[in-house]
Amino acid sequence: MNTLVKKLIKKKLKISFAESCTGGMLSSAITSISGASKIFDLGLVTYSNQTKINILNVNKNIIKKYGAVSYECCLSMVKNLSKISKADINVSITGIAGPNGGTKNKPVGLVYIGVTKGKKLVINKIFIKTKNRILIQKESVKRTFKIINSLI
Amino acid sequence: MNTLVKKLIKKKLKISFAESCTGGMLSSAITSISGASKIFDLGLVTYSNQTKINILNVNKNIIKKYGAVSYECCLSMVKNLSKISKADINVSITGIAGPNGGTKNKPVGLVYIGVTKGKKLVINKIFIKTKNRILIQKESVKRTFKIINSLI
Repeated sequence: MNTLVKKLIKKKLKISFAESCTGGMLSSAITSISGASKIFDLGLVTYSNQTKINILNVNKNIIKKYGAVSYECCLSMVKNLSKISKADINVSITGIAGPNGGTKNKPVGLVYIGVTKGKKLVINKIFIKTKNRILIQKESVKRTFKIINSLI
Repeated sequence: MNTLVKKLIKKKLKISFAESCTGGMLSSAITSISGASKIFDLGLVTYSNQTKINILNVNKNIIKKYGAVSYECCLSMVKNLSKISKADINVSITGIAGPNGGTKNKPVGLVYIGVTKGKKLVINKIFIKTKNRILIQKESVKRTFKIINSLI
């Protein structure tokens, strides 16, 4: 994390987040590092469907058709964040942190991570094999930083 | 925290945050608890002045005149959040987490916490005697939950 913040400062890149299942942990991880103000632009914790629609302008039909934990919703979140924020890198994350709320098709531990950097766009579907909420959130944050790191 | 989440669920109260110096830690603390989706509405991590102006509609003259770490900015953040969110309780927090950025009048550890609940409005000015960034963020979160707890 410290390395990522230093790298972003060095490359003069600003970053913004739209978080669902990590609930602010992504923003908190970045801002725990001194100097984060140089690279951190905005964090939106759109935890409910309603805030995804109202704040991030996710089309309600996307959530109705595919659900909030889906490739489509993750894509919409990151695309819309990039319109709202002034950042060079925009990140969205939506998943099922559990321990409840999982289904056969969408089990606890399913997480989508979306990253845009200029015209680059990556959506990662990952599965974290645990029902422990905090572990899923922490691992999601870790994987997200790994993806960002690979893009800069 | 667990107790606060349970209390909010029991009283059917939704909560939203606008965070600056805690950088997402407040939202993260609440969403680390299973069942948080029942009571957590929205988290805005408006870390930079620009996002306070663009996302939270804080008047730029308030920041220019009083600074981002001020009673006036904290008040504006919480008032404007209450217009954006659908929550019953709205919270804003702005301060100097350090270790750098402090001045004689606004030292590291100075934090303003604003809470609205219906027509109730409380702005607390606190001072946390350490230069440790994480400790200041953690203590700010702790104090904020204490204030919320006293209001519900």
